[in-house]
Amino acid sequence: MVFAKHVFITEVGPRDGLQMEKLVLSTDQKTRLINGLVNAGVGAVQVASFVHPGKVPQMADAEAVIDALPPTDAVEFSALTLNLKGMERACRTTIRWIEVSLSASETQSLKNSGMSVDEALAEASAMIDLARQEGRKVRGSIQCSFGCVNECEIEVSQVQRLAGKLLNKGVDRLVLADTTGMATPPAVRQNLAAVLPMAGDFPVGLHLHDTRGMGLVNLMTALEMGISHFDTSLGGLGGCPFVAGAAGNIATEDTIHLLNSLNIATGIDHAKVAAASRMLSRLLGHDLTGKMYRLL
Amino acid sequence: MVFAKHVFITEVGPRDGLQMEKLVLSTDQKTRLINGLVNAGVGAVQVASFVHPGKVPQMADAEAVIDALPPTDAVEFSALTLNLKGMERACRTTIRWIEVSLSASETQSLKNSGMSVDEALAEASAMIDLARQEGRKVRGSIQCSFGCVNECEIEVSQVQRLAGKLLNKGVDRLVLADTTGMATPPAVRQNLAAVLPMAGDFPVGLHLHDTRGMGLVNLMTALEMGISHFDTSLGGLGGCPFVAGAAGNIATEDTIHLLNSLNIATGIDHAKVAAASRMLSRLLGHDLTGKMYRLL
Repeated sequence: MVFAKHVFITEVGPRDGLQMEKLVLSTDQKTRLINGLVNAGVGAVQVASFVHPGKVPQMADAEAVIDALPPTDAVEFSALTLNLKGMERACRTTIRWIEVSLSASETQSLKNSGMSVDEALAEASAMIDLARQEGRKVRGSIQCSFGCVNECEIEVSQVQRLAGKLLNKGVDRLVLADTTGMATPPAVRQNLAAVLPMAGDFPVGLHLHDTRGMGLVNLMTALEMGISHFDTSLGGLGGCPFVAGAAGNIATEDTIHLLNSLNIATGIDHAKVAAASRMLSRLLGHDLTGKMYRLL
Repeated sequence: MVFAKHVFITEVGPRDGLQMEKLVLSTDQKTRLINGLVNAGVGAVQVASFVHPGKVPQMADAEAVIDALPPTDAVEFSALTLNLKGMERACRTTIRWIEVSLSASETQSLKNSGMSVDEALAEASAMIDLARQEGRKVRGSIQCSFGCVNECEIEVSQVQRLAGKLLNKGVDRLVLADTTGMATPPAVRQNLAAVLPMAGDFPVGLHLHDTRGMGLVNLMTALEMGISHFDTSLGGLGGCPFVAGAAGNIATEDTIHLLNSLNIATGIDHAKVAAASRMLSRLLGHDLTGKMYRLL
């Protein structure tokens, strides 16, 4: 089996990880966290989302977090948007990468954005137009690509259709997200087999959650299919903070530990990421669900 | 990739899972737990170990637990032994399967049994002789087959030598144990490639821990090499109970969830195992580290 020699990690802890936490961190605390990750060698960090501050209070200071980012072009800082209003806010900041995210699940789409999948797709098109006018790079992501707790199964044809639309529209990266941690090795293989031929040279990334304990197994399956872009979260931050042990994103340190064992480089010092996780765990007042952050 | 169509699970929660718990369960509580597992369709349960009760108080009632086992031949009940004294105790009970366990690590061997590896090997030989005289089936297991926290690396030749000795002595099953959760996919492949040709038709099983988050990834790797015997623990019970989130054995429910997704049968109703895990979690007063037991 021949894997990629290098895997590109997008650290999503400051966004996907923190957004579920009850304790709202100060902009200064977030900035220290982001600087710690950059110092560990992380090449991409998702730092904020432009969503309604009433719905996600943790992300209310998105503009301030972006203003405080370290002045480096070596790191792909990104922010998530779900609608045109969010995109307009994002474009008033200096953030270089903007994620345009829509869902493959009708129920999840309505819950998350108040739009049907097709409405969200039309909105995404306008969002991408604006981002490109403003000279930003776009990460297009498809939530619930591997299933949804509300609808159980998502048709491969639906994921393929949305991926095709995003690719044709000209995103700079495509991400299939396992928002609810329902992916399995056969589902990963099936979706990637449908999407990769359309993507050509475009890098397709996976955003995996460990909700059902299969996060790293799915990552292995994707590696076997040539995938070399993954979203991870320091300490496995994410998931529901009110259920101890309920898992979130796959943990950055655990992912790197696995990749190291396979001789796949990431350029990241996972001991430094672990130090940031331990600090964050103390700050949040609870254990994280990753394993290696305790041991490095 | 062609996997086995059926995987045989040995549930080790009542032994490996419970032995680290501070709260000592009553024999009745253990019996209810074991009956719940049998009722879920588990085909093998490790129910006790014959070790010094001062060292592992949780296992002090081994004889009583075995006396209370349900009268069925359909389930392989086993107990663990580390020395001849333990084997003699085991042979005075009706337990049908006895595990003879030694370590590939000198340091771990001395710590765990007070013997060097070669002394433990000679002792194992006498233990197996006695078990066979008494008409018992023997599980031979090699602890720390994939590394040891004290010595870091264990030579493949050491694992191969010990496996050869156990096989020649005539064990009925051979188990390579990742006692400290240090296995990686390349290490799993390397050890199995060394041991499988010697084992021939003997079933070789793996006993995996999720200490470093790689338990199910290692299981996938072993499946790819044709392995179809695994030890698991309900709810991922095991590891250190004083460190919240520190993982133990791979969780029975999570393992079955993965196997189901691959169309591999186990004959076990993992929702029933999950119900037992939730009961056990309440009894022990802490969360378990498995994922699926909350969701089934």
